[in-house]
Parts: sequence; C-alpha cells; structure tokens
Amino acid sequence: MDMAGIFITFEGPDGAGKTTQVKLLERHLRQRGYDVLVTREPGGTPVGEEIRKILLNRNYKDMDAVTEMYLYAASRAQHVRQVIKPALNEGKMVLCDRFVDSSVAYQGFGRGLGMDVVEAVNRYALGGIVPDLTLFLNIRPEDALARGRIRSEELDRLESEELEFHRRVYQGFLALQKKYPERIKEVDASRSIDEVFEQVRRLVEYLLSCKK
Amino acid sequence: MDMAGIFITFEGPDGAGKTTQVKLLERHLRQRGYDVLVTREPGGTPVGEEIRKILLNRNYKDMDAVTEMYLYAASRAQHVRQVIKPALNEGKMVLCDRFVDSSVAYQGFGRGLGMDVVEAVNRYALGGIVPDLTLFLNIRPEDALARGRIRSEELDRLESEELEFHRRVYQGFLALQKKYPERIKEVDASRSIDEVFEQVRRLVEYLLSCKK
Repeated sequence: MDMAGIFITFEGPDGAGKTTQVKLLERHLRQRGYDVLVTREPGGTPVGEEIRKILLNRNYKDMDAVTEMYLYAASRAQHVRQVIKPALNEGKMVLCDRFVDSSVAYQGFGRGLGMDVVEAVNRYALGGIVPDLTLFLNIRPEDALARGRIRSEELDRLESEELEFHRRVYQGFLALQKKYPERIKEVDASRSIDEVFEQVRRLVEYLLSCKK
Repeated sequence: MDMAGIFITFEGPDGAGKTTQVKLLERHLRQRGYDVLVTREPGGTPVGEEIRKILLNRNYKDMDAVTEMYLYAASRAQHVRQVIKPALNEGKMVLCDRFVDSSVAYQGFGRGLGMDVVEAVNRYALGGIVPDLTLFLNIRPEDALARGRIRSEELDRLESEELEFHRRVYQGFLALQKKYPERIKEVDASRSIDEVFEQVRRLVEYLLSCKK
C-alpha cells in the first residue's frame, strides 16, 4: 500500500470516550491545516448505515454471532472502497471510530468466534488497507460501561449485554495490542478528557514526525 | 454431519424455473407423506429478509462485489442456524431455492471475486452443512433471461445486469458441477415444466432410495 494519506483508527470498549477524542483530534488537526475526514463503523456509507440499523436493532436478539461478523465485514468492505481508500488516495487524514480490531474483540473474543476466524473472514473486507496508527482507549469495562450508561438514554442491543461479555471484549483488545504492538498504541482512557487527549495528541504528533 | 433430515438445494441462472420446480417437488413430497420445509436465499429469516431488501434495492448500484458477498454470507449464516439446521434435526425434508453455489457463481464468477475467495469466506456461514443433493437447472443464460423478463414486470438490481455477467455466472455453475459431481446433478431446464419436473423427481427418488 502506498497511499498519500494517513489512516488513524480509534478502538476500545463502549464508553471509553472514542467519539469525543475523535472530535478533539479532528479539530486539532484541522487547526494545523490538515484535510481531515472523520468516519465510523459500522456505517460510513449509505449501504453501511442500512447494515448498521440491522446490527443495532433490538428486535434481532436472535442474531447469530456469525451473522453479526459478516454484517460488520460487509459494512467495512463498502466503507473501505467507497470512503477510506478514495480519501487516502487524495492525501487526506482519515480518522475512523472503530475498525477491524473491534470485530476481532467483539465477535472474536466477546462472542467467542476466535481471533483467527474473524481475521480470516475480514481479510477481503480490508482490500489491503492497514491503519497507520490505532489508538486503543484502554479502560476497564466496568468503568467504561458506567460512563456509557450515563451518556445514552436507551441502551442499544450491544450495550445491553452483560458485563461478562465486555470483559471478554476487553481481553480481545489486550490480545490485539500484544499481537500488533507497532500499530496499536495504548492510551489511558480512565483519566480526564483533556488528559486523554494529551496522550492522543502526542502519539499522533509522533506518527506525523515519522511520516515526514 | 449426521442429520436426520434431507437437504436439497436448487441452483441455476435467473429465469431457469427454480421456484416453479421447488413448488412442484414440495407438492409431490407432501403427497408422499414427507414433512417438507421450503425456504430461499437470500432471506428465510427476519434478519435475512432485511438483508435481502438491501441486496435487491436498486438504489445501491454502487455496492461493491465484496460487500455483496458478505451480505449473502450473513443471510446464509442466520438461515442455516435459525431454519435449516433445526429443520434437519427434526427430520424434515428441506428444499432451498438457491444456496452457497449461487454465491460462488454470482460473486465468484459473475463479479470476478474467484471461487476460492467466495468459498473461503462462506465456510463459516455453512456451519458444517452440505446439501444431500443440489439440482442444477441448466439453461443457457440467453434463454433463461428471456424467460425471466417475461415473468417479472420490473427487473431487480441483479437481473438488470447485462448478458455478459450472466454468461460468467453460467460458467460458474458449470465449474461447480465439475468440482462437485457427486452432489450437483444437472437437469435440462430448457424443456417444458413437466419434462423438467420429471427429471427432478427421478433424481430425488434416487436420493431417497439411497437414504433408506
């Protein structure tokens, strides 16, 4: 892959503060003159938003974990080809709220399909794309869920799962960081918004200095 | 797999007459006292019907072939676990209008993703299920399309693709039959409905005699 742009993904448990940090980084980079595109998974395209609706619909409680894995991969395949790759080819800085690591953590570990299966299935969704930097907003699931529940009035299908599920997801993120230490950098997300952003900012500045 | 039931799939180009033959076989088998379940792909479950709507929506002309492949796999994963496996476990005769071979023919050959990619991705959707018999309704795409166009007033997204696409799909079905000659049996679908059904009936009777 020899793309002109830079691809940064945000990962971590529900309630870790990813969306807030994406917005802060977007503002910071725009102020520094970067052409920034912010996007999210699942979704990011018209087809992807339709898929997102199915995934978050609380009526589909009997959705199988394998079905869920393929739906996320479908959304991702479209997102990569219709949004992320074109933006990177135009030299943009792409910030993405969740990407393939979330599939590995949630379906692979949380739902127990295993890392290998989820990575094998997602291989074709990625179309050769690898994030330049993945910011893992590390927070214990107990603390993350408490935060998330204060923010959202109604829990969606995923967030209403019990704590044990989120503990497995968290183990998944830890395993991914261990497997890809060069790409995935940890941020202590239990601290204040400003303190978390200071860590994010430093890691991104370091990436940008290496890219020059 | 040691299932009590029998799983028969119908495959072939659009307009080959699959749906008609499924109905005829269903009636025939019910008359003979079998407990028959008729289903179809994509769809067959509430989640699958939602996915089907996305797949057949003509507004999504920019849907990538890889996205399409994952959506069919998602629908199939749910269908296998929620409908097909439970029915087979109850000893039913399951007749399915399209199954995994259609993904290989349409996305693998028609859209050019390749047989290996589509089979690898679908492996986890199948959950170990293999049809006992696949009836390939063999008709040249020119003839099949002519039939299909007379039947349907508005063409859906797939059927409005040009003939060249359907020729590649047809080559896919031929390649599958060559790869799995024990499972996939050819029926000359260019003949009259009654003549086609006579071939279907004989192949199914043979299968049933072997299962005794």
